[in-house]
Amino acid sequence: MQEPGFDRVLVACHRSPDGDACGSSHALVWTLRQMGKEAAVYCPEPFGKDFSYLTEEEPETVPFQPEHYVTVDVADPEMLMNAPFADQIEICLDHHRTNSVSAPYRYIDSDSASCGEIVLDLIRELGLEPDRKTALAIYTALATDTGLFRYSNTNEKTFLAAAYLSRFVEKEDFYRINKLLFETKSLKRLSLESYAVSKVGFAAGGKLAALAVSLENQRELGATYSDLDVLINVIRQIEGVTVSMVAKEREEGVYKVSVRSESGFDASDFCAHFGGGGHIAAAGCTLKGNAEDVLTRLIAQAERRLG
Amino acid sequence: MQEPGFDRVLVACHRSPDGDACGSSHALVWTLRQMGKEAAVYCPEPFGKDFSYLTEEEPETVPFQPEHYVTVDVADPEMLMNAPFADQIEICLDHHRTNSVSAPYRYIDSDSASCGEIVLDLIRELGLEPDRKTALAIYTALATDTGLFRYSNTNEKTFLAAAYLSRFVEKEDFYRINKLLFETKSLKRLSLESYAVSKVGFAAGGKLAALAVSLENQRELGATYSDLDVLINVIRQIEGVTVSMVAKEREEGVYKVSVRSESGFDASDFCAHFGGGGHIAAAGCTLKGNAEDVLTRLIAQAERRLG
Repeated sequence: MQEPGFDRVLVACHRSPDGDACGSSHALVWTLRQMGKEAAVYCPEPFGKDFSYLTEEEPETVPFQPEHYVTVDVADPEMLMNAPFADQIEICLDHHRTNSVSAPYRYIDSDSASCGEIVLDLIRELGLEPDRKTALAIYTALATDTGLFRYSNTNEKTFLAAAYLSRFVEKEDFYRINKLLFETKSLKRLSLESYAVSKVGFAAGGKLAALAVSLENQRELGATYSDLDVLINVIRQIEGVTVSMVAKEREEGVYKVSVRSESGFDASDFCAHFGGGGHIAAAGCTLKGNAEDVLTRLIAQAERRLG
Repeated sequence: MQEPGFDRVLVACHRSPDGDACGSSHALVWTLRQMGKEAAVYCPEPFGKDFSYLTEEEPETVPFQPEHYVTVDVADPEMLMNAPFADQIEICLDHHRTNSVSAPYRYIDSDSASCGEIVLDLIRELGLEPDRKTALAIYTALATDTGLFRYSNTNEKTFLAAAYLSRFVEKEDFYRINKLLFETKSLKRLSLESYAVSKVGFAAGGKLAALAVSLENQRELGATYSDLDVLINVIRQIEGVTVSMVAKEREEGVYKVSVRSESGFDASDFCAHFGGGGHIAAAGCTLKGNAEDVLTRLIAQAERRLG
């Protein structure tokens, strides 16, 4: 099928690309090719190796001079990291309510749990069907953005999209992707998770779980600062815990604190007390001092609020 | 709505009740009550406390003399543990291909990932709609039997059922259930998982992960034999591992071995070598000796097969 016009399309996604960025950009590019057009994916930073089943056959550089620019899942032009075409976006597809990309054609649907679902809507609106790899790309987008249908953004539309996509894949396809993305961990990551379990402290009758990781701990663990991101997800799942916090020493004597909460504890307000901020269920702040001192102040303030 | 006949119904599910047993039995009982009938759930063993959001308002004993008996998710009459009505089952609803319950009315649909989906089919066939708690019960059934849409039994029907059910619940309902059933772990369980990570050994270039837990280890860990079930799921998720095995000392010098495999390694054939058996991806066997000796024999045999 050859549609006239709108050819040589660059589909751009955001830096630190996640499954939705990778999946929705590839799905749209493959759909444009199905329509007989030249199209390529652009991302300011490399895709993770977990997504190689989507990216492996794509060229590393754009093999044509683009004439049209489309963004998917890009909430803010800053997420394109000064791409030279950042002021030439013609079509912006996104599911972030706060989208600030300027483009003549903007389609923002915050009822979609992932941008991949919007690409699927477009495919069906065009009277097309996804092929197997496009279906896998869109599945990747919606499975990762919903934490495998776990988060509260999962809705009827998400499930209907997954049902529709399942018609175009092989029986074990989704299972293989799920295992790769949600059930495989490096030994290093598992060791870090064990460290969190062995060192976590509790307060407020077990409702508060807190952990500090000094620069010295990071050296002992052979972990980089960004490796520590997984720790909060370990301690927040402990039975009975409603508020969890991890203080990570970023530089000598400076701790970045991540807070996660549920059951009405306002993490944003809690962090504002220390000069930080965020959302009600996830927020952050920065404290100076040593590990013990930082934990003591955090716990004292949290206990006051937990009653 | 009052349908004539077929009143005073006992809906029985299987021993060691899982989310599908609990969810599909409650969903069917609540539907029968919606039809104006007396109905109650029967289970030969108590439901887990994780499912108290379904079970908490149900009476502990059956408050009427049953006239009709229905089974849900019961593959084998033996799973009823000699219930006095085991030979009076009138309707058997199940999704296990190998169902051996004898009843005048049998509806076995092995395309359903859970028995809950069959109860939903019945509700819709009757021209009814699930109320909120019935929708949550069916969601519990399908979410647990598919490992939250993760396993390869998940199919188009599963997703369509989830999409339909999402119309009858509140926005955060599924999220709360997911968090409770899939993201909450006791500290004891997390400590056991850490133990597995710290003690697991590798062979065959990292493809084989193996762990033995002696009776002495179990005492040190404060763990019962059945607590050890979680260990295999920790080591099988390690990056690069395709065959995982855990040898648990059941009694002095007797190790029960669980084997999980993928990528074509036949766990059943492997276990048959030691006098055991099972399925291609999950099997078991029993070896005598001490921990070191048992592991040595298992690893030697596995390495031979992994080439």
